[in-house]
Amino acid sequence: MNKEQFEKRNLQICFTPALLPFVDTDENTIAVIVDVLRATTAICAAFDNGVKEIIPVATLDEAETYKKNGYLIAAERDGIKASFADFGNSPFNFRTEEVKGKTIVYSTTNGTQVIGKAAEIASEVAIGAFINLNALCDYLIKKNKNVIIICAGWKMRFNLEDTVCAGAIADVLLKSGSFVSKCDSVAAATELWNVAKNNLISFADKCAHRHRLKKLGLDDVIEYSFTLDAVDVIPVLKNNTLIKSEF
Amino acid sequence: MNKEQFEKRNLQICFTPALLPFVDTDENTIAVIVDVLRATTAICAAFDNGVKEIIPVATLDEAETYKKNGYLIAAERDGIKASFADFGNSPFNFRTEEVKGKTIVYSTTNGTQVIGKAAEIASEVAIGAFINLNALCDYLIKKNKNVIIICAGWKMRFNLEDTVCAGAIADVLLKSGSFVSKCDSVAAATELWNVAKNNLISFADKCAHRHRLKKLGLDDVIEYSFTLDAVDVIPVLKNNTLIKSEF
Repeated sequence: MNKEQFEKRNLQICFTPALLPFVDTDENTIAVIVDVLRATTAICAAFDNGVKEIIPVATLDEAETYKKNGYLIAAERDGIKASFADFGNSPFNFRTEEVKGKTIVYSTTNGTQVIGKAAEIASEVAIGAFINLNALCDYLIKKNKNVIIICAGWKMRFNLEDTVCAGAIADVLLKSGSFVSKCDSVAAATELWNVAKNNLISFADKCAHRHRLKKLGLDDVIEYSFTLDAVDVIPVLKNNTLIKSEF
Repeated sequence: MNKEQFEKRNLQICFTPALLPFVDTDENTIAVIVDVLRATTAICAAFDNGVKEIIPVATLDEAETYKKNGYLIAAERDGIKASFADFGNSPFNFRTEEVKGKTIVYSTTNGTQVIGKAAEIASEVAIGAFINLNALCDYLIKKNKNVIIICAGWKMRFNLEDTVCAGAIADVLLKSGSFVSKCDSVAAATELWNVAKNNLISFADKCAHRHRLKKLGLDDVIEYSFTLDAVDVIPVLKNNTLIKSEF
């Protein structure tokens, strides 16, 4: 089926999970979660490196229970690895041979919290980042569904890097001709992407969270996290577990 | 006292009232409310035309009670004038001789709702719009206070015109050298202002609310609402009533 056989689909962006109560979605909607620094970048890197599945959990308590049952755990709060965890949430953690073929339980400050919430308002959930930008967009264009991009933000607040990444995704989807949008957040995010795109790393310097990571010595991931199309995987949620899409 | 005697003050933007629970303010903070289409533009126009005071109320019931007590009422929901009201919320309503020297009770869909909320988290509340941009900024620079700009948005959602106006205010404040910001919303809004500023009316065409007003035949206010410095009044809240600042 080619795109001409589809009606134009609706595209929205939600800038923080705190605004989810005010979005309109239906059962024909894919939610894309974006948390560039660092959860969704790390999840894409993990699947690119052969991780079998990732179980996102909201609380550290849940993650610790899984740990007691023998699971490999990645968990952080405010950038700092949880004491009981095997990994934090650097994308580089997930690029080691150690994780290949494994199931990982994952809990982060912002990104994994919102995955469960997204599943409540959409029929499918996919994971987006700069590193899987065009693979993700191809996937979304081929599906006959509306799209809402949900920025993980920072503790419910607006966050610049997730917004610019959402703008990059929106820009590709709108230019494909398959989508329309009457959403002011889409207009704002695509404008910001157009300002940022020719010098993403320098734009990243405007992001408050980049400086939080720098203070913690965790900003070695910046260049990788802002690299377009470093991988071509699309992690999707099935039965509360992230797997690599076969699409 | 000149500005060198002040420490640099903190500047934040809150994109919608739904995000107010996540901002950090202190008792030394001025909140600026922005609702370009149309409440804060109308309030500035009213004071420029000699209105004595405006009592903002959140609900239509409150407005109707004032009506029964003989007050002049401006009230709308979704752009439509309330049946019992004397005016809707076009800035042009408030530019007639009829309102000079009068007290007006005012209730709108977004703008007047947030004035009461702002008073709970800040020590002062001021009214901002494109039409009073530089007068407002002079006022804010002279005060020795932190500033949070609160966009009224649209039914708790992000809204482009209020964001660009907040970016314009933030841009002037940051360039004055009196303010600093680590707020991603400030970074995003000032970027958007810089994209929009050379052709504001054409940028306004991207705003969903501009099209809502057009459908209702209420978009005659667009050009006026996006005119920089049409007036030099700064409406401020004292004892739950808006008056013209003497500052």
